[in-house]
Amino acid sequence: MVRPAGFEAAISDAVDAGARAIVAITSGLGERDQAGRALQQGAVDRVRAAGAVMVGPNCLGIADTSTELDLTWDDFGPGPVGLISQSGNLGLELAQLAHEAGVGFSRFVSLGNQADLDAAECIESLIEHEPTRVIALYVEDFGDGRALASIAESAARLGKPVILLTVGSSAASVRTAYSHTAALVSDSIAVDAACRASGVFRVETPQQMIDLVQMLLMAHPPRGRRVAVVGDGGGSVALAADRLTAHGLLVEPFGARLTSDLERILPPTASTGNPVDVAGGGEEDVFNFERIIRLIAESGEADATLLTGFFGGYSEQSDAFRGLELRVGEAMVQAVERAGRPLVVQTVYPRSATTIDLRRRGVPVYGDIDAAVRSLGRVVERLANPPFGIPASIAPQTQRPAIAAEDYFGIRRLLGGAGLPFIEARPAESMDAVIAAAEALGYPVVLKALGGTHKSDAGGVRLGLADAASLGGAFTEMRDRLHPPLFSVERMASIARGVELLIGVKRDRSFGPIALVGIGGLYAEVFRDLAVALAPVTREQASRLIESLRGAQLLLGRRGRPRLDLEAAAEALSALSRLASAMPEVSEVEINPLLVLETGAVALDARMARIAG
Amino acid sequence: MVRPAGFEAAISDAVDAGARAIVAITSGLGERDQAGRALQQGAVDRVRAAGAVMVGPNCLGIADTSTELDLTWDDFGPGPVGLISQSGNLGLELAQLAHEAGVGFSRFVSLGNQADLDAAECIESLIEHEPTRVIALYVEDFGDGRALASIAESAARLGKPVILLTVGSSAASVRTAYSHTAALVSDSIAVDAACRASGVFRVETPQQMIDLVQMLLMAHPPRGRRVAVVGDGGGSVALAADRLTAHGLLVEPFGARLTSDLERILPPTASTGNPVDVAGGGEEDVFNFERIIRLIAESGEADATLLTGFFGGYSEQSDAFRGLELRVGEAMVQAVERAGRPLVVQTVYPRSATTIDLRRRGVPVYGDIDAAVRSLGRVVERLANPPFGIPASIAPQTQRPAIAAEDYFGIRRLLGGAGLPFIEARPAESMDAVIAAAEALGYPVVLKALGGTHKSDAGGVRLGLADAASLGGAFTEMRDRLHPPLFSVERMASIARGVELLIGVKRDRSFGPIALVGIGGLYAEVFRDLAVALAPVTREQASRLIESLRGAQLLLGRRGRPRLDLEAAAEALSALSRLASAMPEVSEVEINPLLVLETGAVALDARMARIAG
Repeated sequence: MVRPAGFEAAISDAVDAGARAIVAITSGLGERDQAGRALQQGAVDRVRAAGAVMVGPNCLGIADTSTELDLTWDDFGPGPVGLISQSGNLGLELAQLAHEAGVGFSRFVSLGNQADLDAAECIESLIEHEPTRVIALYVEDFGDGRALASIAESAARLGKPVILLTVGSSAASVRTAYSHTAALVSDSIAVDAACRASGVFRVETPQQMIDLVQMLLMAHPPRGRRVAVVGDGGGSVALAADRLTAHGLLVEPFGARLTSDLERILPPTASTGNPVDVAGGGEEDVFNFERIIRLIAESGEADATLLTGFFGGYSEQSDAFRGLELRVGEAMVQAVERAGRPLVVQTVYPRSATTIDLRRRGVPVYGDIDAAVRSLGRVVERLANPPFGIPASIAPQTQRPAIAAEDYFGIRRLLGGAGLPFIEARPAESMDAVIAAAEALGYPVVLKALGGTHKSDAGGVRLGLADAASLGGAFTEMRDRLHPPLFSVERMASIARGVELLIGVKRDRSFGPIALVGIGGLYAEVFRDLAVALAPVTREQASRLIESLRGAQLLLGRRGRPRLDLEAAAEALSALSRLASAMPEVSEVEINPLLVLETGAVALDARMARIAG
Repeated sequence: MVRPAGFEAAISDAVDAGARAIVAITSGLGERDQAGRALQQGAVDRVRAAGAVMVGPNCLGIADTSTELDLTWDDFGPGPVGLISQSGNLGLELAQLAHEAGVGFSRFVSLGNQADLDAAECIESLIEHEPTRVIALYVEDFGDGRALASIAESAARLGKPVILLTVGSSAASVRTAYSHTAALVSDSIAVDAACRASGVFRVETPQQMIDLVQMLLMAHPPRGRRVAVVGDGGGSVALAADRLTAHGLLVEPFGARLTSDLERILPPTASTGNPVDVAGGGEEDVFNFERIIRLIAESGEADATLLTGFFGGYSEQSDAFRGLELRVGEAMVQAVERAGRPLVVQTVYPRSATTIDLRRRGVPVYGDIDAAVRSLGRVVERLANPPFGIPASIAPQTQRPAIAAEDYFGIRRLLGGAGLPFIEARPAESMDAVIAAAEALGYPVVLKALGGTHKSDAGGVRLGLADAASLGGAFTEMRDRLHPPLFSVERMASIARGVELLIGVKRDRSFGPIALVGIGGLYAEVFRDLAVALAPVTREQASRLIESLRGAQLLLGRRGRPRLDLEAAAEALSALSRLASAMPEVSEVEINPLLVLETGAVALDARMARIAG
């Protein structure tokens, strides 16, 4: 046990004594201050010079249940989960939750300061680690985020899905993460973009992580959204149907044949159409549960079956019931296995003998209906939306002249040169020049006072100026109020005929350029209907992003509206993402609105920001 | 034990023998078929004639722990929750979840078919039932929904908050509820409206219900949104801050004085600004938890404190630690009690000795961070939005002439007469009449083909027709395609200068007329940004509804936009709600869009539907 002051010497001694793998628990080093970072780096240099590796410092240790190595202060039961955590305490919390859910660990690594080994390297080692089937990851500082995303993508492709829990979606959390491990957290949208690229599942709480682990360990994942609901109570099955629907899954009526097959088994008070309420049919003969689930699985009418209610509780009543219910559970599992369809169970008795046995047989079992439904929804959603893959990086274009954030016409020229279609505009300083520009363009026009980056916030944009009188009035008013160095006079677009999108690229310190698209104009800030991806995106990926918006309905020609030119919008997003990816000095570029019309799309405004310093 | 055929006779015998309160378990009666309903009604008539009361049939019994009456087949531990459930099985599930959370029951009533006693009467009895402090309600069929909401409002006003779990938000759930207890479920928005009126808390799952019960049993509910976070791990506190923020709560930095007070107690690696990460300060001295929580409570800088992480786990280590941690817990509770501020705990050890003791002392303790944060958010939200109260009913106006759904100008006259401001419009059948109408109104105009109820779906609306040529072209095209019996020529409103709302009233079979308002026009269906209330609403309530929309920002004058005439919009909603409330024959009436301008609001379209038959 050494304090920070003795850390470097202890590492030296260890390396000299022949240690080639070191777990460093000591805290108060790199996460503390400049002096601590120096001490830490000295130790890392010693480790690397010796060809050794180090986990930590400022960590809680490592464990590998397949080799019985346990250098932690908690018990990790054996199982299929490889857990990598930058927070030791959250690792212990996950261990406790996993224990309650009957899930065990193949390996646990508390990353600490990642001074030598980092999260990506630990994931890499789990890919080849045979007992590991699912990788659970808690990270605050993503370092080289694209490298991490790339390793995670490989793991998922090789059948080891990765689940990520992280922090930083609130200002308070960002403050703490920094003071905790000196982690510079990434923007939450950058993390979302990396997940879309890599296929990593992002969760919001430790409990959601363990819930999803169970679902990912299923032998036969669902191939679609249709769920059959079976339960021993009308209230439970109705509630399950509501929650499934709320999470984007479908509870559709069964066909006549399956319904009549179920009617033959169940009492007349049962519901047999989906949801199925056995209504006492379980008490009549507990094997009815197996018969129902077999009939549904064999029918092919559902992609998954959710059993909800009290199954698992019979085994709590007596030894005789326990034997009976265990046999029913076993038969149920055999039936769904044969049909290659998944069974998910929610029960009031999540820790009974039957429940434990069902889990051992690969059936995810939950106490809370939302835990079951949310996890199932995540797996189904991923199948419907396969990952984009990590885009190849684009070499920076160093020959480009620097453009200031205030230089609106420079930004237009730059983006226009990359193929982005802008509405026609002319610069003008004086009243006469403004009127002349409008006459050249044709009324009605738009007048913008330049010089600020958020023109419309300051009342620096006037739309639909129909003649010289109204244009002149707007010019005088804006000149006197805002004193802009320059105006832009622009053709007025047919806004009512199109839909406004916002497209942009934002640079994250870990994940690089992030492409984003959302419903734009007035509604952008209000509804936050955004989709994101690692930039650059292909035209096809850009289309998928746009189609994933709730507002996509507005472009697709519904409710008597024409179908708009989604392809032109996708091409614009793709072009913007390629351009910004090649400009590492640009922290943010945004076209808002991009007006999407029946034919084509046109940029009505743009802004750009450079990385400070 | 009697089957349905013997039911009426058994009830008769019981009444004749002097029984004045009967619990009827038998199923296969009113929920089954016409014959069952007749048998059930016969029994009810016998019960009422004798001045007796009956719970059920088709129920699981009742229990009252304060009198040790137990006519159920499960054990209900004693405690403060009065549980009324239309589903017996969901009642048992709630009992199990409550048991795990250390919460007990004052009374349990399984409602069954509510043939005699119904949910409202059972709530009424709980208001006077001294041991009951919180009322938990599961209902599928609300019967006279306004009467139920009114009783629930009384209960809440008298300090016994009501939590409601129901079904029917999906088509599958509606199918099942009907076949289960012949319940005709209400529209989910009607239930939301009743909750806004009565102050009933609506939850989505049994687990959420028990989570919220714990929070409502707090001695000192929070008086605002500011939450202090304290924990023994940077990851846990950062995560808690993210989840609090996601649920609408605030985690704001502490002032300099509180921060420096905390710094004096804690090790240098701790975060002290909010969130507080004790960073080993708990292991140094477990009483540090009490000191921190006391300092925060006394500072007045937070409306509630959330302790997250491992507190409660020391007592699992040894008897000595148990005694110590119990003393710390007791001191913490005393500190927050003195300050009159609430403490909420989330811990990895939700079933330890300290945890149980904290709960006994009135501190809500959760294992899952989202359970804690969601429940806290619900309580805070209710304080910010006090209930509307149940509106007085309006006598139906029977003198009104019937108006057909197709009669657009009739609907305009009816609504206009009630004070709703419509855009100027003229009926026209022929090309000549259409052109003449446009000339009288002034170009540009709007042309609508009448006869259908969803004009814009069928392409029956053309906006911004600027001259006779384009108007004539639109007329010919629509006439040939849609063959409408009549056209409407309307003045074109300045859509770009305003924001479109949707206002309407929908009649629910249980809850009567429901007023609704949302962002309208193109975006109404996409973003479903709706607020609802029992109709009629006052102008002040209408304003609160509009202000509760996410899209309200667009009306309030943000980002360089003018403030729009919210008062005119509220007046329109209030007027529409009064009118529709007096017309029981109208199932639905809607103005979409209502264009809200800087001065005034104007209805651009309206439709109305009558109750079928």
